[in-house]
Amino acid sequence: MKACVDLGGTKIAVSLVDAGPEMSLEQAMSALQSRRSEPTEKSGPPDTVARQVLRMLAQAAQAAGIREQDIEAVGVSSCGPFVVTGGMTEVSNPNICGGMAGPARGLPNDWVSVPLEAPLRQRFANVRVENDGVGALQAERRWGALQGVGSCAYVTWSTGIGFGLCVDGNILRGKHGNAGHAGHTFVSDSDDTLCGCGNVGDLEALAAGNAIERRFASQGYAGATALFTAARAGEPAALAITDELCRVMGRALYNLVTTLDLQRFSIGGGVFWNNRDFLLPRLQAQVLGKFPALTAGVEVVAAGLGERVGDFGALALVS
Amino acid sequence: MKACVDLGGTKIAVSLVDAGPEMSLEQAMSALQSRRSEPTEKSGPPDTVARQVLRMLAQAAQAAGIREQDIEAVGVSSCGPFVVTGGMTEVSNPNICGGMAGPARGLPNDWVSVPLEAPLRQRFANVRVENDGVGALQAERRWGALQGVGSCAYVTWSTGIGFGLCVDGNILRGKHGNAGHAGHTFVSDSDDTLCGCGNVGDLEALAAGNAIERRFASQGYAGATALFTAARAGEPAALAITDELCRVMGRALYNLVTTLDLQRFSIGGGVFWNNRDFLLPRLQAQVLGKFPALTAGVEVVAAGLGERVGDFGALALVS
Repeated sequence: MKACVDLGGTKIAVSLVDAGPEMSLEQAMSALQSRRSEPTEKSGPPDTVARQVLRMLAQAAQAAGIREQDIEAVGVSSCGPFVVTGGMTEVSNPNICGGMAGPARGLPNDWVSVPLEAPLRQRFANVRVENDGVGALQAERRWGALQGVGSCAYVTWSTGIGFGLCVDGNILRGKHGNAGHAGHTFVSDSDDTLCGCGNVGDLEALAAGNAIERRFASQGYAGATALFTAARAGEPAALAITDELCRVMGRALYNLVTTLDLQRFSIGGGVFWNNRDFLLPRLQAQVLGKFPALTAGVEVVAAGLGERVGDFGALALVS
Repeated sequence: MKACVDLGGTKIAVSLVDAGPEMSLEQAMSALQSRRSEPTEKSGPPDTVARQVLRMLAQAAQAAGIREQDIEAVGVSSCGPFVVTGGMTEVSNPNICGGMAGPARGLPNDWVSVPLEAPLRQRFANVRVENDGVGALQAERRWGALQGVGSCAYVTWSTGIGFGLCVDGNILRGKHGNAGHAGHTFVSDSDDTLCGCGNVGDLEALAAGNAIERRFASQGYAGATALFTAARAGEPAALAITDELCRVMGRALYNLVTTLDLQRFSIGGGVFWNNRDFLLPRLQAQVLGKFPALTAGVEVVAAGLGERVGDFGALALVS
């Protein structure tokens, strides 16, 4: 039996799956049906989150009628960024760690990072912790729209913007497992919006779901859904904003093509998904045709696993 | 015996080296001493360049008193970008191919790409063609400032701007071997300067050596050397331009850290090298301190192989 953990700023989800190294999509979907989730605990000592994960794993084992030691592998798809302490991955995310975000965020703790890999390894022999962009990428490569493509990216356009990257068949991790944080690349000088990372004017500050809310509420658009609905109805201001968002997002995709010589992008996430037919051609237009020697044949497609691609991330890490 | 070819828009250089898989820096330096170079031929049919390379290899073998079939491996470090035709790498570079660059460039041919890998493989069994950023990166990893670093980049800040990228110990190639063309990433909206790639406002258009010449000649700076000399002397306008160039270049380095979670950059190239003590702290300031979870501990250093790092590129490909 294998255990899969999704660790996010809002909730933690755990599921067990009984599958070999060639987990099928059916097995993965069945595992998701028995998934249990809880809000992420944020009060107490810094190991609170890790203790919560361990308790949820123990409860899942009990519910499945197995012993904890029958869990042969644990895959964790976690929000980032990560820091590494004593060779072990810790999570340093501003939605969890009050000490990073500052008092304005109102988190009931002063954590700067929370341990994750070390406490899991004390209990389980085979542990793999990856950032959630990597998990989702691996899911798309295994069951979705990136199967058989050696150089590719999964893009989540959601409350935040994240990437999972694969070049020459190798999934990119980087020195601390933080590869794919390209939502924090600078792509423009056109706005001075502050990002959660503390910088001004990066991609996430300009185009993420929470940025759309913040930036355009005063123009009457409460969020991405309201904005894109108005744009679809032909409202000129909403169309202009949409085109600008796609220009910025498309620049980031183009930048990844020039940097990594990618073949295909698969895009998911809440901001994108419900308006994918409307947004996809606008994003494609920002990538294709520019510098043809690099962009010829590049494909920009919707995620094969649809709205649930993130849910499959941890499963892909143990499959 | 192994053969090394540097193919650039201006010249082609060929050398032979008699070394095993663990070529030492001394062997590499000795091989460079016997290197022969010629201007790149640009008139005739599209296979002109490949025929020139083959002739130079034959002449090098003859001069060394060996038969061509004693050349067991050929490494080519070539300007890009590449296109792939029938599985074989061709060079599609606007300094060589008149059909790409348009009549304004005045090249005496209408080539769109020139064959390279295919004609070499007809003559030699073991051929490796990489873009020159990859060659230089491999040289820095083998003999220079990137030894033992799994996630790193070599940056050439010269007439153009190019990168070689390595993540988790794997050198990145991408679908056609064009990974590392991050000189063509968009990092700013602050200028509408046209790049040789046809786009407006990418890094190379803003900060490459030829861009510095074009952009600031009217302000009295004939090129990078004149500009940095004035900046070193404390001339306010030159200092402001230098800071802006470093801001743009530093953004590109920061973007690579967030995208690839790199540990170290090694920088070389003519624009950088003669003013490295002056430019290095300015570049470091653009990377370090921003989003500490990603940038803490990142090193930005001068190339270990100095001005000659590019020369070692093809040697590193066969070592």
